[in-house]
Amino acid sequence: MLIRKAAAGDWPRIWPFWHRIVAAAETYAWDPDTSEEDARALWMSPAKTVYVAEDDTGAVVGSAYVTANYGGPAARVANAGFMVDPDRAGQGIGRALAEHVLAVARADGYRAMVFNAVVETNPAVGLWISLGFRILATVPEAYEHPRHGPVGLHIMYRAL
Amino acid sequence: MLIRKAAAGDWPRIWPFWHRIVAAAETYAWDPDTSEEDARALWMSPAKTVYVAEDDTGAVVGSAYVTANYGGPAARVANAGFMVDPDRAGQGIGRALAEHVLAVARADGYRAMVFNAVVETNPAVGLWISLGFRILATVPEAYEHPRHGPVGLHIMYRAL
Repeated sequence: MLIRKAAAGDWPRIWPFWHRIVAAAETYAWDPDTSEEDARALWMSPAKTVYVAEDDTGAVVGSAYVTANYGGPAARVANAGFMVDPDRAGQGIGRALAEHVLAVARADGYRAMVFNAVVETNPAVGLWISLGFRILATVPEAYEHPRHGPVGLHIMYRAL
Repeated sequence: MLIRKAAAGDWPRIWPFWHRIVAAAETYAWDPDTSEEDARALWMSPAKTVYVAEDDTGAVVGSAYVTANYGGPAARVANAGFMVDPDRAGQGIGRALAEHVLAVARADGYRAMVFNAVVETNPAVGLWISLGFRILATVPEAYEHPRHGPVGLHIMYRAL
């Protein structure tokens, strides 16, 4: 697997799994009907550094971004987001993207990373904990999960 | 005091205290050098409902916004922000704006309100607690305060 910075031309290869994940409305607090244009503006924003994971055949199987979670006096706390093609779940792609993102965030001078809204039923919670994140707090019943009903949103944190 | 929805023409009366507060870099996690144009785009964004407080002479002495804190399946959690002219501190303007904003957010169908980044040394923390908010968690040393050094950012919550 290769993790590299995304180029504008990668977007059409990110969008199919991005759309599938957001439309499922189980893990992201974004509009499940987000258009491709809005999704591209959100994920590929100039404020974000975007990465893709490529498998050995050159297929894009995941993507992640890093950005500042706050501005001004708090700009040294990073935020990141991750999407892995659901057809490629369980192959270590999320972990590889996260390890890469943690290393580049640290190298870029960020002192900590915060995830603002991790759906508490998302299996990725265990991955984040295994990577040194802890649950700072849970916003109760903030997320209407299509199968589980109202579930909490974790705020997760790790120092870098 | 009158609290009413802001009109586009109110911006020049908000900007002087907005700029003074953000430039002081003690309470907002925004770039202290934010330009007037960027500040207007941020505060008066179409995604936000903006209010102003007018004193008896018609002077704009404070402003607040309400917006969704998340999207999609979590869109029923609100976020809000508040600015009071520092020359008018201690006159109940922040409390009046907050009570108004809590009432309209509830009326608009929001189930809860979250503040994502309240600087822990901000005297407003006491106001939010007196209004029913609680500190869900504190992101440690996330904010470089010009007088206090690194201080935490509270995530504050109340049900509506």
